Parts: sequence; structure tokens; C-alpha cells
Amino acid sequence: MAGKIDRAKYGMCLGTSVVVNLLLIVYLVVGEKWKLSWSIRAAEEAEDVAAQPCSGHGRAYLDGLVVDGKPVCECNTCFGGPDCSQFSPACSADVDSGNPLFLEPYWMQHAAKGAVVVAGWHRMSYTFNGHSIISEELEKHIIKLHERVGNAKDPYKSQTNFFRSMDYKFVGDTSMWKNTSDVNMNMIEFVTSPNNPDGQLKKAVLRGSSVKTIHDYAYYWPHFTAIPAPADEDLMLFTLSKLTGHAGSRFGWALIKDEEVYERMLKYTDQISIGVSHDTQLIALQLLKAIFQGNNGSDIFEFGFTTMRKRWEILSKALSESNRFSIQKIEPQFCTFYQQLRGPSPAYAWLKCERDEEEDCYEVLRENGIIGRRGSVYGAERRYVRLSLIKTQDDFDLLMLRFNSLLSQENYYGIETLM
Amino acid sequence: MAGKIDRAKYGMCLGTSVVVNLLLIVYLVVGEKWKLSWSIRAAEEAEDVAAQPCSGHGRAYLDGLVVDGKPVCECNTCFGGPDCSQFSPACSADVDSGNPLFLEPYWMQHAAKGAVVVAGWHRMSYTFNGHSIISEELEKHIIKLHERVGNAKDPYKSQTNFFRSMDYKFVGDTSMWKNTSDVNMNMIEFVTSPNNPDGQLKKAVLRGSSVKTIHDYAYYWPHFTAIPAPADEDLMLFTLSKLTGHAGSRFGWALIKDEEVYERMLKYTDQISIGVSHDTQLIALQLLKAIFQGNNGSDIFEFGFTTMRKRWEILSKALSESNRFSIQKIEPQFCTFYQQLRGPSPAYAWLKCERDEEEDCYEVLRENGIIGRRGSVYGAERRYVRLSLIKTQDDFDLLMLRFNSLLSQENYYGIETLM
Repeated sequence: MAGKIDRAKYGMCLGTSVVVNLLLIVYLVVGEKWKLSWSIRAAEEAEDVAAQPCSGHGRAYLDGLVVDGKPVCECNTCFGGPDCSQFSPACSADVDSGNPLFLEPYWMQHAAKGAVVVAGWHRMSYTFNGHSIISEELEKHIIKLHERVGNAKDPYKSQTNFFRSMDYKFVGDTSMWKNTSDVNMNMIEFVTSPNNPDGQLKKAVLRGSSVKTIHDYAYYWPHFTAIPAPADEDLMLFTLSKLTGHAGSRFGWALIKDEEVYERMLKYTDQISIGVSHDTQLIALQLLKAIFQGNNGSDIFEFGFTTMRKRWEILSKALSESNRFSIQKIEPQFCTFYQQLRGPSPAYAWLKCERDEEEDCYEVLRENGIIGRRGSVYGAERRYVRLSLIKTQDDFDLLMLRFNSLLSQENYYGIETLM
Repeated sequence: MAGKIDRAKYGMCLGTSVVVNLLLIVYLVVGEKWKLSWSIRAAEEAEDVAAQPCSGHGRAYLDGLVVDGKPVCECNTCFGGPDCSQFSPACSADVDSGNPLFLEPYWMQHAAKGAVVVAGWHRMSYTFNGHSIISEELEKHIIKLHERVGNAKDPYKSQTNFFRSMDYKFVGDTSMWKNTSDVNMNMIEFVTSPNNPDGQLKKAVLRGSSVKTIHDYAYYWPHFTAIPAPADEDLMLFTLSKLTGHAGSRFGWALIKDEEVYERMLKYTDQISIGVSHDTQLIALQLLKAIFQGNNGSDIFEFGFTTMRKRWEILSKALSESNRFSIQKIEPQFCTFYQQLRGPSPAYAWLKCERDEEEDCYEVLRENGIIGRRGSVYGAERRYVRLSLIKTQDDFDLLMLRFNSLLSQENYYGIETLM
């Protein structure tokens, strides 16, 4: 009898201890996950899509096609197959668009920081807090980022307005208007600095009371250029596209000194479409928060600069011996963000075909498997072509593959000429 | 010795059994949650914000202010305090804007269905699949929804284009142009059906080769009107705003029959801003998916119709005895979606002040704590005011509180006149 009770006691004791220990382990391991409820379905779905193996040459998206219950990989250019592992050897390097995919790996590496759960009832109203079309928290983070990077002066004194980002197209060089005598003509000068396509820092050319200047600072971030001093202009445009790489979010903002201009712009964005999508504003906010969580905003620029600098060095080195092609020279400059002299890391190579007979540079490249953007788009001669260096690593690698083959032809051509 | 071994065996046995059972329970309960990784932070943050107690008279948002580490409640009009529980008795009923918050409770009740996890690397490109500015899956779901509701004919034959939704403003009634003899003048007629503000179903007035017609079907959903037949017009506009209630997402689409018109519109939206934010498109897709998950698309319209019908009945009943105020009459109509005759449930009441001396109806209401929208905004006499019925339940309840007090004055006024 005593043995039985003992056994029972002992068993219960051991059992209880195991139970308590297990509960503790479960609490420690599962911990917070335990508490989730309505967001689990969405979280699982997103993680499932993200886990699709696309061989590092593509990725599946939450709103992509689903075949046989599996999200379909969307492959980088020149890659194919269900898992994007098949490379098409004859495929051209497409370096036409300014698609800023060089930052995609950054966000994949910092998945937890960049993610947002959007609730079904998120800010359904037309306005924030019943009046504004602008998220106050997002505005704060934008100002904080400018302060951190030092690329725009005193944003606290400026007004911020959000707009749907657009890519301005070159319509004619203002330098030709510099000495115009028609002082009565009202003009708006667009200054893009660093300049697209050549990456040079620019100042306004036109002056006077009849001239208004809009500064496009889309590329004025440490990824692409030294920051010699904070910009301090009347109307400064920025876009998420070239800062975080989210071109698809179509989000931009303007820092505006003149209160009247600000009020008019705000009225315009309000009237045209009652502001920018609240979902987009929420996601932009999370991306900026994530930037600050990465070593107080250093990480993303370190990643961006290192990537762009390396690409520029590889391309420069390959072309250094060439007499057939040349690219722009950008002088090293002191960068206040890095507090040191830094070499160039531009978004685009501005390539020139040097041979007399190769006037149509775009065609020369195209025939050799490189698709650039015609210089004429930027008002330049046909000898010039813009090559985008900000796309995926695959795009850049393929560009170099095609270039190296082109340059080896050049050596052969040189030998042939000598003979 | 035998007893000890027995005890040990028994204990181990019991312990193992408990462990196995517990693991099974843990697996069953925690199951899927167990697997989550990078989305957990975002999910916790969203659930934490959603769990803020705001007394049913407000809600906290993920991008709202945070004070002392706690997300701040944003209260419905006339409610205040940290948890929105304080009602301001003197506050006016604000029924000016067409903010479609009547659907907010629907999305709160279906939290799991409506949620989306947006990954930091979600569709960073300018385009979908390297070419389109439109999410194919979203387009499919839009077409499927029109088929389900039966409010637009054969959308497969139409082209779909996405745009930033806007609210069209009344600029003049086309009826005055009906008999114009100037046949050379090109005209675009906007037809809003059901009409804003009076909720009547409308047809185009102008005909002829110099006339193009744009049909705004923002309110052509079972929430607001019977659907007598699928619309079958050349250019039909729809918006998420009055379908799901997400005015803040600024998302709309057009169904276009003419391929040339479609191509031009697509080019325009492409050039103006390279399409609609990908984040917004993703969220719109999830909302449409959620609609289908709610009893194959019945639930949201059941919720919307029931809410709007009830509000209309309450308002109609209250005004039925009044000689001072009247509202529009809408005839019951056969609805193909419900397959039965259904009474009116319009988005707005089109109120008329009937007393000779009360010409400025907006002012009469304003002085009595009701803020409507002046009839003049819609080209009507000052005797008319639009009252929004699609805002929060709090807004509607307060409107009725103010109305009932106004109507009780009327009885008193009536008695006084008799005396």
C-alpha cells in the first residue's frame, strides 16, 4: 500500500515538475508569438511567399501569380525557369531604366525591420486626424533623416508636402537661356543635383526675379554622391525611390521655404487627389523607422555606397584601357556624412563612343548585347548613352560580361589594325 | 529495490506521457504561429495598436502618435479623452464630408481577413513583371467582383486602368445643354449614378458624335442602391472609397470599351506618375479577397445595405411628420443582386428647408448644431443641404439627436402658432 501511494506521489511530483518546466520552456520559446491572433493569417501568407526558393535570381510576391497553390517566382532579367535558376546566355544586358533594385538585398537582409502589418481598418478616412492629408509621424521622420544625413538645411523652418513621385524628363538645357535679354519672361529652372545622367553636382544657372528654381535632389543621398553641404534652396524635391529603392511606392516630398508656395502646392495635391494613399504613407514611415534602426541610419548608406562604389570601380577599371568607350570623370569630394574624402559612386555611367565611325552609340551597344538609354533623351549627342548601375546585381554582372567581351574585341581590333 | 525501480519506471512513464501530451497540445494550440519569424515584430506592433481601448468611439493607428510608449486614441467627432469616452454635449453633428466610415466596423469585425503583411522588399520596381503598371491579380479580382455584383456588363471585354481616385465636383448641369444647336462643340458629360447628392439613378442627357460620356459609378454598389441591371457604358469609373470604405487609399479604376481611349489613359497615368503605388494595389487586392471570403461577397453588402437602410429609415421616420424639412423620395426598385424589390439606402440625404423665411437652409441647420454641405456646391438653391449618412455611427447618432431636438421645437412652434 505504502509503495503504491509512494509511486503515485512520485509520479505526480515528477509529472508536475515536467509540466511546469515545459510550460516555462514553451513560454520562453514561443513567448510573444503566443499572443498573436488576427495577424497570423497574413503573417503566414507573407512568410510563405517570401520563403519561395527563387535561386537568388528572383523573388515571389504576395500579389503575384499562384500556380498549383504555390506562389510563382518572378525572375530577374535573363533568368527563367520555375526557380529562376536558368540563365539565357544570349540575353541582352538591360541597363536602360533607373530601377533602384540595388537596394533590394538590403531589405531582404533586414526583413523584420522593414515589415508592416496593415490592418483592414487602417486610416480609412480621407484625412489624418480629421484635417491633414499628411502623416505627422512620417513628416517627423523625414525631417529627422535629413538632419542625420545633413543633405538639407534646417528642414524645421521649411514646410513639407507629400506628392506622387515622378521622373522629370529633360526638355532642354537652361544654359542656353543664361544670357537671354528677355527679362519679362517667367521661367522655371529645374536643377537636378547630382545630375541625371552624369552624376555631377549642379547649381542653378538662371537668376533674377522672373526665375523660379526647383531643385530635384532625388539622388542627393550618400549612396550616389558625396554630401559636401546641406542643400538650402527654395523648393527641394526628394523621392523614396532613390533613397530606399522603393520606386513602386511612388512617394516623394518637397521641402518648401515660401509659405505661399507651400499653401498652393498643398491645395493642388489636395484638389487633384486628396493627397497620397495612406497605405503608402504608412509603409514609407516603416521604411524610415527601419533605416534608423540600422545603426542609427548608417547601415543603409553603407550598403548603398559600398555597392555603388564597387560597381563604379569595376566598370571604370574595365574601361580604363579602352580607346573605344569612355565614361564621365567625377572628382573625389569631401563628404560631411562620412567626414572624409570619398570617391565617386554615381547612379549612372554616361558613356561616350569615341570612334569617329561609331556615331550612334546606342546601336553599337545594342548590337553587342547592351541596352542603354539614348543620349538624345537627355539632349546630348548620339555618341552618348546612359547606363543604369542601380539595377540588380544580375543586371550589373551581365553588363560587365557583355562589356568584357566587347573590350576583348577591341584588343583584337587593335592588333588587326597594327597588322 | 524492486519498489524503487518500479517507482522510477512509473515516474518516467507518467512523465513521458505528460510530455508527449503537452507537446501535442502545444503543437495543436500554437501550431502555425510557431513557424513565424521576420513578420512577428510587425504583427505584434499592429495587434498592440489595435488592442488600445478607445471606448468604441475611436481607434489607434500604427502611424499615430505614441505618448509614454502607448499609441494614442484618435477619437470620433465630438468624443475626447485618452480613451475617447468623453462626449462633448455642445458639439455639432458634422455630416459634411462623404467619409465612408460606416464600413469601418465591418473591417474591425473581419480583422484576420483584411490584414496584409507588407514585406520591406515588396515590389520595389517601377513595374509589375517588368512591364505593367497594373497588378494582374488585382485586375482579376475587380472583374470577378463586378461579375458577382452584376453592376457592370461583360468586364472581360473592357480594359481596366487604375488611377488615383478623386472626387468630382459639380460644375454645371448638362440638362441646360440638352437642346443646344451648336453641334460643333465637343463636350464631355459626367454622369454620376446613383447621383450625388440625391441618390437617383441617372442616364446621360447629351447625345451625338461630338459628345463623350464618362459614367461615375462610385455609388453603384448594393450598399447604396438597387442594382436594376449591369451598367454597360463606354467609360465607367469606380472607386474603392465607396465600395470598401477605404477613402484614404485613393484607389480607383476605369472600365473602358474603346481600345484607343484605354491606351491613351494608360499612357497618361504612366507618364504622370508611373501608375498607382504598389503598396496600395497590394492592399486593395487583399480587401477584395476578403470580400470574397465573406460568404462569397455577400457579407460586406449585407452589412453595408443593412446599415444604410436602417439610417435612412430612422431619418425618414423622424422627418415624416415635419412641415419644416423634407428629404428626397427614392422609389423601391428591383435589385438583381438581391433578386428582390428593395427600399432606398442612399449615401446622402438631400434636405430641403420648406419654410418661406428659411431660405438659407445651411445656416438654419448650422445654428441648430448640424453641419451639412450647402446645396450651392451642387448647383442647387440655398434651400437645399446635403447630409452625409455614411460617416461613423456616432456621427449619425448625433445627427439624429440634433434633429430630434429641432423637430420637437417644430411641434412647440406649431402649438405656439395655433395658440
